Amino acid sequence: MIYFDNAATTRPSAAALEKAARFNGSEFFNSSALYRGGLKNAAELNIARDFLLKSLGVSSSEYEAVFTSCGSESDNMAIFGAVKRGVFVTDKGEHAAVYKSFCELKSRKLQTEFIDLNRDGSVSEEKLLGFVQGVGADFVSIVHVNNETGAVNDINKIADKLKKINQKIIFHSDGVQAYGKLPVRLSKSVDLYSVSAHKVNGLKGTGALIKKRKLNVSPLIFGGGQESGLRSGTENIFGIKVFEYAAAEKLERINENYAAVSEINRYLRNALDKRYVKILSSEAASPYILSVSVPGFRGEVVMHALEDEDIIVGNGSACSSRNRYSRVMESCGYSKQELDGVIRLSFSADNTLEEAKIFAEKFNGICKRFKGVI
Amino acid sequence: MIYFDNAATTRPSAAALEKAARFNGSEFFNSSALYRGGLKNAAELNIARDFLLKSLGVSSSEYEAVFTSCGSESDNMAIFGAVKRGVFVTDKGEHAAVYKSFCELKSRKLQTEFIDLNRDGSVSEEKLLGFVQGVGADFVSIVHVNNETGAVNDINKIADKLKKINQKIIFHSDGVQAYGKLPVRLSKSVDLYSVSAHKVNGLKGTGALIKKRKLNVSPLIFGGGQESGLRSGTENIFGIKVFEYAAAEKLERINENYAAVSEINRYLRNALDKRYVKILSSEAASPYILSVSVPGFRGEVVMHALEDEDIIVGNGSACSSRNRYSRVMESCGYSKQELDGVIRLSFSADNTLEEAKIFAEKFNGICKRFKGVI
Repeated sequence: MIYFDNAATTRPSAAALEKAARFNGSEFFNSSALYRGGLKNAAELNIARDFLLKSLGVSSSEYEAVFTSCGSESDNMAIFGAVKRGVFVTDKGEHAAVYKSFCELKSRKLQTEFIDLNRDGSVSEEKLLGFVQGVGADFVSIVHVNNETGAVNDINKIADKLKKINQKIIFHSDGVQAYGKLPVRLSKSVDLYSVSAHKVNGLKGTGALIKKRKLNVSPLIFGGGQESGLRSGTENIFGIKVFEYAAAEKLERINENYAAVSEINRYLRNALDKRYVKILSSEAASPYILSVSVPGFRGEVVMHALEDEDIIVGNGSACSSRNRYSRVMESCGYSKQELDGVIRLSFSADNTLEEAKIFAEKFNGICKRFKGVI
Repeated sequence: MIYFDNAATTRPSAAALEKAARFNGSEFFNSSALYRGGLKNAAELNIARDFLLKSLGVSSSEYEAVFTSCGSESDNMAIFGAVKRGVFVTDKGEHAAVYKSFCELKSRKLQTEFIDLNRDGSVSEEKLLGFVQGVGADFVSIVHVNNETGAVNDINKIADKLKKINQKIIFHSDGVQAYGKLPVRLSKSVDLYSVSAHKVNGLKGTGALIKKRKLNVSPLIFGGGQESGLRSGTENIFGIKVFEYAAAEKLERINENYAAVSEINRYLRNALDKRYVKILSSEAASPYILSVSVPGFRGEVVMHALEDEDIIVGNGSACSSRNRYSRVMESCGYSKQELDGVIRLSFSADNTLEEAKIFAEKFNGICKRFKGVI
């Protein structure tokens, strides 16, 4: 099988699973328990916290890591917990976890603004800064890497500029498609940053919200007071330690991985037959995501044809049956024909150039056959 | 090691872990993906849902199972999502996930009521029904099994009586300490029921909220629309399948397990030396939980002394440094001396009578030594 849907989820690291297995075995204790087994697990959680902070280039005196059940929960916690009223600003290229949370804010009669995108799916900085200068903002959420086009927003620069306009703006970024892939060192202007384990060969069911210590964030989930009272519920220590171990593998080789994935990406940009295929992701996008379109065909039809060849790719178009086109890709300004035919290829360091070669051959063959059918 | 803290967490089932391992291996796909691997995993989630409903004796036409990250999230979702305004009623014996959520409702200026407990930790039905008849109620949450004393509330009967007073009352129960331990067949008067995986030898990080289909519950977490739009975030399929498999093991042997644990419980009630120890849990309590007190000593001191003998028990008193005594045990009306010395023993079917015998001997010895020291 060739698996090119790593932006949807990644295969859990066998090494990380093995290393963490004891937390489902001899070290299964509740990390809130006051006996040695519990205290040791609480210390293990703190090691994972420190690792996460260090891997983002922030100090544990200024920032803290709150473990959550997923990137979506982290986004929701940031959006609903950090600022209670005022002007909430985001962009049209956000993942549903941010987008739908903003829709919820809007339905609660809070003032929300969705800033336009550039053609590549990045936020228009000009429009963002213009809006904030004119209307103001209390909370701004800008995705780090767009999960459909791979467009990279320079969140440090954006956050710095926003803080120059108004130091009191709270800035959040969904870093789910960036963490463990692009080297990230968060600027001190970034108050909140969401990460997810299962996008970096960790497990589904684990995420974290990185936050400035001095920033008050009210909990989404109340109870036993775990995670410094910010997120109740017995911590998923197995998932958290797999996250730490898997992310450490990624971070150790982040530059080699980036180079290898870039080579795959470059190869495909050249090798896909331009008579049938249009490359949508910009050259400046994260190499981990390559969106293409086969105009005139439904993306899911191409996806299923590839599946018959044991090749897994993402369906770029909306999963929702109500919306034919992807909200994000539509905001990039593509034609209906292009939107219909979107396919998202997304890579991991486990992929090889050999797989890319096989993919290109099969993909070009399928496109040729389809075009012949018409 | 003798592990008598199963109400805090249980050792994950090795068989369930093995059976579910493929979801972290060859079947790691995102269950929202539209290719075969994704669709198959979505079907596996539905199998787990159907199992949960069946195991609670409810039909999948009337009820649905929403997977969450833990029992606390399930409780929060029920409390914040089902009813938006009106009178919120609970009791003084709830787990923190319910208690603190009610405190949050109160701080949001909603009307809340905490009904008194009977001496054993069960809710005073008389006071509950009296309050609802007098003042009314829109939402009522009553724990099924008290996690400190093991007191069992007859939630079906309570819910039926509440619905006779007012058919529109929404009734929720935290079933975390009941599910997989007591045979449960939910009455149709129960609208919402919370369960957790790691209390029945599943994994931390997985829970579910069982809900009436026709009842609208607004999400706590917005995003990709997983779980019929009720709980966004990529489903933790590994955790969910381990939950299903582990719970199935429990349900299959629920009566044998109940009998075996009852024998352990009975043995300890007799064997613990009454010169030093007071049994707090009532005879009618769930046999899985046995709270005792060593008046005149701090429970944690006894706990640590037992730990030195490789025996793990729960610390009955409050984990919070701010409260010296357990809020729940205090509501039962015990004296300060009794409250200070609380120890919670909690069992699983993995425990043996042999362990209970060793425990009784060691425990009595420690108490005798301590009393001698004074």
